[in-house]
Amino acid sequence: MDLSLIRRIPDIIRQNDFKVTATILRPVRADGKNEIINIEPGDTTDRNFAIAVDIGTTTVFGQALDLHTGEVLAQQGEFNAQISYGEDVISRIMYAEKGDGLETLHKRVVETVNKIIRGIIKKAGIETHEVSTITLAGNSTMTQLLLSINPSYIRRDPYVPASILYPPFHATEIGLDLAGHTTALVYPGVSSYVGGDIISGIMASGMYRSPELTLFMDIGTNAEIAIGHQEWMVCTAASAGPAFEGGGVKFGMRAAKGAIEDVSINPDTYEPMIITVGNVKAKGICGSGLITLAARLLETGIIDSRGKFNQELDTPRIRQIDDIWEYVLVFEKDTQIERDITITEPDLDNLIRAKGAMYSAALTLLDEIGLKVSDIERIILAGGFGSYVDLASAITIGLLPEIEPEKVTYLGNGSLLGCRINCLTNSLRQQVTQVVNMMTNFELATTPSYMDHYMGALFLPHTELNYFPKVKAKLEGLRK
Amino acid sequence: MDLSLIRRIPDIIRQNDFKVTATILRPVRADGKNEIINIEPGDTTDRNFAIAVDIGTTTVFGQALDLHTGEVLAQQGEFNAQISYGEDVISRIMYAEKGDGLETLHKRVVETVNKIIRGIIKKAGIETHEVSTITLAGNSTMTQLLLSINPSYIRRDPYVPASILYPPFHATEIGLDLAGHTTALVYPGVSSYVGGDIISGIMASGMYRSPELTLFMDIGTNAEIAIGHQEWMVCTAASAGPAFEGGGVKFGMRAAKGAIEDVSINPDTYEPMIITVGNVKAKGICGSGLITLAARLLETGIIDSRGKFNQELDTPRIRQIDDIWEYVLVFEKDTQIERDITITEPDLDNLIRAKGAMYSAALTLLDEIGLKVSDIERIILAGGFGSYVDLASAITIGLLPEIEPEKVTYLGNGSLLGCRINCLTNSLRQQVTQVVNMMTNFELATTPSYMDHYMGALFLPHTELNYFPKVKAKLEGLRK
Repeated sequence: MDLSLIRRIPDIIRQNDFKVTATILRPVRADGKNEIINIEPGDTTDRNFAIAVDIGTTTVFGQALDLHTGEVLAQQGEFNAQISYGEDVISRIMYAEKGDGLETLHKRVVETVNKIIRGIIKKAGIETHEVSTITLAGNSTMTQLLLSINPSYIRRDPYVPASILYPPFHATEIGLDLAGHTTALVYPGVSSYVGGDIISGIMASGMYRSPELTLFMDIGTNAEIAIGHQEWMVCTAASAGPAFEGGGVKFGMRAAKGAIEDVSINPDTYEPMIITVGNVKAKGICGSGLITLAARLLETGIIDSRGKFNQELDTPRIRQIDDIWEYVLVFEKDTQIERDITITEPDLDNLIRAKGAMYSAALTLLDEIGLKVSDIERIILAGGFGSYVDLASAITIGLLPEIEPEKVTYLGNGSLLGCRINCLTNSLRQQVTQVVNMMTNFELATTPSYMDHYMGALFLPHTELNYFPKVKAKLEGLRK
Repeated sequence: MDLSLIRRIPDIIRQNDFKVTATILRPVRADGKNEIINIEPGDTTDRNFAIAVDIGTTTVFGQALDLHTGEVLAQQGEFNAQISYGEDVISRIMYAEKGDGLETLHKRVVETVNKIIRGIIKKAGIETHEVSTITLAGNSTMTQLLLSINPSYIRRDPYVPASILYPPFHATEIGLDLAGHTTALVYPGVSSYVGGDIISGIMASGMYRSPELTLFMDIGTNAEIAIGHQEWMVCTAASAGPAFEGGGVKFGMRAAKGAIEDVSINPDTYEPMIITVGNVKAKGICGSGLITLAARLLETGIIDSRGKFNQELDTPRIRQIDDIWEYVLVFEKDTQIERDITITEPDLDNLIRAKGAMYSAALTLLDEIGLKVSDIERIILAGGFGSYVDLASAITIGLLPEIEPEKVTYLGNGSLLGCRINCLTNSLRQQVTQVVNMMTNFELATTPSYMDHYMGALFLPHTELNYFPKVKAKLEGLRK
């Protein structure tokens, strides 16, 4: 018990004739001790709640949980209010380095979390003082800004975060709108770029207690990869660039209404059929649509393995404008934007570089531990983006290794899921420290083999087609 | 590490090329873990200090300690600034029950401790941020007021303090003028009236790890007694009244300049010889003087075993004024106060009740565990008062059991000593919890045998002279 609770005990225990309900926080370490964090008069056993929060660079998600039943009672997402100070982590770090920038960014994200807390507490019909614990996860920069820790060194050699593990603390200590006894737990990270959100996802995936060799991937502008099983784990982060989120692509966009998310192409006429988010007229192409489109272009021979258009094909859709070759996906009249929606060779270059960065990061990790792609028994795709990726297309372009579809799991928001599980089970809190300790982080920039792997991955699907025997066979069959 | 330290790490570790000194707080529990409470650039191993503070109802004492050498660097005592709100613990509790009384008393004692901290830090030539830890001890009321815990229930059935054990906390949390990382430890108590000051003294005495059956006594208005050895311990508190501190005695006073502290009486002429504190003209009689005086009066037959004057003796010093018999210790001309300094039968009654309360409390404890006074192998006298008591006189009047002088230890301010040892050795912090758990507390008011023992103890030395064979022989020899 801490002092503030001891101060309240003398009165509380006498309110209902020395009959009370104690709320116990189980220890974060196996060798730790239980802590009484609250005492209430009478029997309040069935009023015990928790909050799980995933703090993304762009979006923050929260859920209210009933610790008695395990149910999710309410959830809410909000844009991270830090977004007006920079879109990505590097620009946030740079802002934090100026004047009271750290304090500002800290307050903004706390405001966002508080907005979510107020919302879900109201929707769930619970009171602040009934929330015993909150678990939060974010990447290393989001975590340090949440905790008001200067993130400046994250982007400086030797690229280490201020701390790997964070102690449990009172939620009020960082300004959260919760009761004085509410304990906050923040997911530990492993390195500057493999942060608490990834560890949370790994904990949610259960790969750390599976005997199968698992590849965990969170696909995005910054892609995080972990490989391992119950006995060891390695991880790394790769900068993939913004292609998966629609950036650096002429008609790229986020997966909002009007985004092309699925494509098929007639192999004889080269005419496409598209599906957009919300089934409205097309506005652009989102990341998952881009991956499928690239696979279809490759399968139909419209592009070659270097992402270059076959200029010999007899279709008006392949054309050269201002020296740049492109394929027209939707003509002006069928769009919302009064322009042809096309995909260009530079777009495909960006996509190839993005998928190449991810795949070669996985290959580098495997190489460093003496394993091959074919040793991978299971793939877990985390992150919002991962849920929308068409598996076959992702394999066709060489973003993911060749594997049977039933061995791929879509985790969705693994970070939020890991926070939720952490609220519900004590064992996870103890295991997470072991997981962090068993995980070896590789910095790709200082791993010599990475550049070779990267160069080899700048093909569709790869310069070494033996990594993709089925894709190879399929492509050969289609083009016969 | 806690959040506030983690916030400072990124900058600190880079100040001296990742070479730092970490200050580690060893765990309070054997199964606990070390905690890093401070990180400093470079090697600061030899600058590590601690503070020990005994919070008395009347006086607060503090010491600054060098944790590298173990030395006491400076010390200071101040009156507890709470004193203007009530002299004893009950009046403090009553004040705390009114309006913002608790807050006021809390602030006053924190101010007193801060005054001492500032004083000893300056004298010792150290900086606030170099103080790693502070240990404090006080009775249950002083402890609760220090920690801002409502002490009201201490004086109400079932007479239990808010807590036995207190967690380590940041010194700043209660307003102490120390650094954010300085950890405060407060000695646990056992009951409403056997508080942290007594436990601190017991830890300092080492009786909890000795095989000898030990009687630990802190003599004062509220007397605390513990009996036991390495395998078990019992304790109790007795209200002795203020006689030992000069209260309820016509010419009683504290042991200040002019207080009669030693007396001998010519057995033939009944003329006294006195020694005063500071060797100045007499002003009154202090507690230890009173005990010696009563012993001399008894030995010379001036009073009998009930504390009544022998009205037959041929001396002008024994007289009756306003129906009250008294003995003139100093005639007017030799005093500072222009009045005869006397000791009266009511004074002796108060003294007998005080010593009777203490002795019978010890006897009751022994009785409850099936032991006899003669089983006691060692006596430890704690408290400022205990240090000044003349052992032979105390035994003669039946305040202490008959025992060889070499088996009596004077501990002095055991509470301060226990705090000091707690700063210096980690093992004590772990043992104190065991000691508190092994100690059985008896409430005399609900222990039926106490009243019988008390009635029997209202004689000099006792109604049962066989408890005091040597005193009996001496008195018989003197009066032959």
